[in-house]
Amino acid sequence: MNQKLPSVLLENAVNELASLPGIGKKTALRLALYLLRRDIGYAEALAEAIVNLRRHVVYCKQCHNISDSEICTICANPVRDHTLVCVVENIKDVMAIENTGQFKGVYHVLGGIISPMDGIGPGDLQITSLIERVAKGEIKEVILALSTTMEGDTTNFFIYRKLSSYDVKVSVIARGISIGDEIEYTDEITLGRSIQNRTSFNDSIKI
Amino acid sequence: MNQKLPSVLLENAVNELASLPGIGKKTALRLALYLLRRDIGYAEALAEAIVNLRRHVVYCKQCHNISDSEICTICANPVRDHTLVCVVENIKDVMAIENTGQFKGVYHVLGGIISPMDGIGPGDLQITSLIERVAKGEIKEVILALSTTMEGDTTNFFIYRKLSSYDVKVSVIARGISIGDEIEYTDEITLGRSIQNRTSFNDSIKI
Repeated sequence: MNQKLPSVLLENAVNELASLPGIGKKTALRLALYLLRRDIGYAEALAEAIVNLRRHVVYCKQCHNISDSEICTICANPVRDHTLVCVVENIKDVMAIENTGQFKGVYHVLGGIISPMDGIGPGDLQITSLIERVAKGEIKEVILALSTTMEGDTTNFFIYRKLSSYDVKVSVIARGISIGDEIEYTDEITLGRSIQNRTSFNDSIKI
Repeated sequence: MNQKLPSVLLENAVNELASLPGIGKKTALRLALYLLRRDIGYAEALAEAIVNLRRHVVYCKQCHNISDSEICTICANPVRDHTLVCVVENIKDVMAIENTGQFKGVYHVLGGIISPMDGIGPGDLQITSLIERVAKGEIKEVILALSTTMEGDTTNFFIYRKLSSYDVKVSVIARGISIGDEIEYTDEITLGRSIQNRTSFNDSIKI
């Protein structure tokens, strides 16, 4: 799209909106024109929510999850199992796992995974603070729940090595065929891994 | 999606973003987390552009197009043909026609079309100001370029009736088969109209 916009204000708004991921110039224009049709209070509320989010958001001191206070609601919950820590890449993963309702432990948000291609090294992630948490001696098991990509595997291995000198169990979430998937259409790597990592039938029906 | 978000600030931002058309909760969350990863200046620039757009935007006094000054650049352009007025529904239509580079006249933006289902009557649109422009006697032709829907046709007819007492030619943009379309796949109404409104072969090759 190479439209001459009739107003500098409109052009600014379109450019800013189009800089968001997944929003192109055409969608940005549609959003800007929608904003023009709504009353001023609507635009102000939207702008305020955006700035407040960025300005006042806090990260949990313990797990680095997004939070409204120093310690997030998960870490502050005495009912949860604080000896079980699930290591995830980002906040969305915490929400995804929370939605399953299957995990009663706490989290540790790395803020990314090791990716030399994107210039992200171990120092850019919350790995040191994970080691420090483990060093306190209260954590019995660290579950690595990272993406099943090369970068995820690298990060898993890096953390595993770092934790090897501590008395803590390190596990990885199960990889295999998704529930509802057909064997025929499963990719070879997943299928291969799922045969390697097969579980006893008695174990599999417990869940 | 029914996720418990870990922060009220995040929840506010997600709700505000999700209130925009075409943006669901999932996209809103992705945008909010993206904003968190960028620096504060980015969020502020976005918020400022949104508020400034809504607060300071001006509409052209003559054609009601969005503008940075009282009279828009199109209406203020002495090279354009001010005796030829193209009536459109909204600002996007102006931009679409401008992009063709085929129209050298000026515009009149109605701000919508007559749609009793949506509670939009002639009084909600810039029809009176169109009549006033025509009444000045300088306009020779009014081209109606509205959607080819029932509502568009109703609005066309309403404007046509209102203008019938003035010495002005009223025309409608051509409706027919789109360039590149195959007869076989054209819907019956378009095909029927395109036969009714056939043009002399000599005229058709002039363009």
